[in-house]
Amino acid sequence: MIEKLIKAIEAKDAPVVVGLDPMLSYVPEFIKEKAYAEKGETLAGAAEAIFNFNKGIVDATYDLIPAVKPQIAMYEQFGVEGVIAYKKTVDYCKEKGLCVIADVKRGDIGSTSKSYADGHLGKVQVGSKTYAGFDADFATVNPYLGTDGVKPFVDVCKESDKGIFVLVKTSNPSSGEFQDREIDGRPLYEHVADMVNTWGEECIHGDYSDVGCVVGATYPEMGKVLRKLMPKAYILVPGYGAQGGKAEDLVHFFNADGLGAIVNSSRGIIAAYKKDTYAKFGETGYAEAARQATIDMIEDINSARR
Amino acid sequence: MIEKLIKAIEAKDAPVVVGLDPMLSYVPEFIKEKAYAEKGETLAGAAEAIFNFNKGIVDATYDLIPAVKPQIAMYEQFGVEGVIAYKKTVDYCKEKGLCVIADVKRGDIGSTSKSYADGHLGKVQVGSKTYAGFDADFATVNPYLGTDGVKPFVDVCKESDKGIFVLVKTSNPSSGEFQDREIDGRPLYEHVADMVNTWGEECIHGDYSDVGCVVGATYPEMGKVLRKLMPKAYILVPGYGAQGGKAEDLVHFFNADGLGAIVNSSRGIIAAYKKDTYAKFGETGYAEAARQATIDMIEDINSARR
Repeated sequence: MIEKLIKAIEAKDAPVVVGLDPMLSYVPEFIKEKAYAEKGETLAGAAEAIFNFNKGIVDATYDLIPAVKPQIAMYEQFGVEGVIAYKKTVDYCKEKGLCVIADVKRGDIGSTSKSYADGHLGKVQVGSKTYAGFDADFATVNPYLGTDGVKPFVDVCKESDKGIFVLVKTSNPSSGEFQDREIDGRPLYEHVADMVNTWGEECIHGDYSDVGCVVGATYPEMGKVLRKLMPKAYILVPGYGAQGGKAEDLVHFFNADGLGAIVNSSRGIIAAYKKDTYAKFGETGYAEAARQATIDMIEDINSARR
Repeated sequence: MIEKLIKAIEAKDAPVVVGLDPMLSYVPEFIKEKAYAEKGETLAGAAEAIFNFNKGIVDATYDLIPAVKPQIAMYEQFGVEGVIAYKKTVDYCKEKGLCVIADVKRGDIGSTSKSYADGHLGKVQVGSKTYAGFDADFATVNPYLGTDGVKPFVDVCKESDKGIFVLVKTSNPSSGEFQDREIDGRPLYEHVADMVNTWGEECIHGDYSDVGCVVGATYPEMGKVLRKLMPKAYILVPGYGAQGGKAEDLVHFFNADGLGAIVNSSRGIIAAYKKDTYAKFGETGYAEAARQATIDMIEDINSARR
């Protein structure tokens, strides 16, 4: 699956992923009003609003970008109805030819991780039939439980040609509380990075593995070290834009081949119309604002990797 | 919420939780046949089968136990239909007066963790209305992202009178890979335990906090240390039974008051009819087998804490 993602990054010349994290506060009033008129101020109404919002963003950006990253928490907050909107979003993005990175940060003991991996990436058997539950292309995985929590995802990557990004160093302010603590003279995140290499060994295609990692743009010095430590791992980079990461911070997340990293922006794209720079588009032009913000982001990121 | 759980544990004299982790392979043929006859060999058919299976287990055990712990991965594997069955299971268990511990192991950066916390435990605003998405009583939380990933859950505990169990030392074989690594002379899981104390400080009711922890029955020596290190934290103990933990291993998970721990069994209860000990109940008696296994487990666990 990593080859497919790389091909898409090269075709669009854009190592960029749009985060579909539709907080209701980002959704323009006219979309919410229409959804509530149809389904009431209900969970179903909220789900309709966020799906229609996503659809506008995707329609306005899919020709520019290789991938989207829906953050499932933003859907789960609306219960079952939200999860239905999540699935509709995944399906719609795949119809548009986009790689879908499910930001689910799952991870559990072996048999349970297998169910997560089957549900989000792979297939499940029901009697004589097999089905794909959510059928994303990639998923993010939490490593706290160690190899037997991650391995079932790696197995599904091999069986179903999918990929994962394992949390190594996250973008949030308190990520260092545990991740930076020194073990045998090296921070925990480097030990996790070593395991990313191990887990990824069996699914290398060309220069990269289906097992990638997450390293936040907000920690550029650590990104530089981690890039070298995991030469075969694609880095999914959150934290650009709204969280404070700048393009110049991202230079060292890329390998010499100009590949090896894909940078996410969520709020900076999907809520661009709320920023002064893109205010001229107005609420009704939220999708065009997202398109312009995506174009600007791609230019910014490409300046960093060249 | 911890007070409600403790009251239920004392009323039933059973520090025991039944794990509702319905793998299809545990579900008796007659239940699957009926579900597939109604809804086909589809994801909806599988969801119908697991919900009906759960209902049988709950009907046969709810008078004996204070709480259930549905493992959401087992539902997510069936996609949206599975999540619907999860929600029906939560609702049904609450109707029966049970505390519901959502084993979701969520954890993300701050704003995202807030959405998870709102969705699984708290409430979400839709226009002028508020709704509870999944509305469990407790959730399990992964600490890898540090305080800003956990704090939103703690806030929801305070706002909505709910509780959490933070992963400290998990029951799986490779949990030590990161969790046992020494930092300043103490294993990582002890550092996480320190933070469990900190996170829980603001929501102590009586002798215990709404912020509990997860420590596997499979690591009794560590449980002994962790029990003392976190005197106010209720310990949710997985790993008893099928994973190898024995009652005698659990003695030190309890405080001197006989409280402080609640032990989970999933497979050992819900698939009891597949074990020699309970084979006499047969497939059609799977619920009665679960009841007997629950009675036996309660007796076993109570022998350990007295």
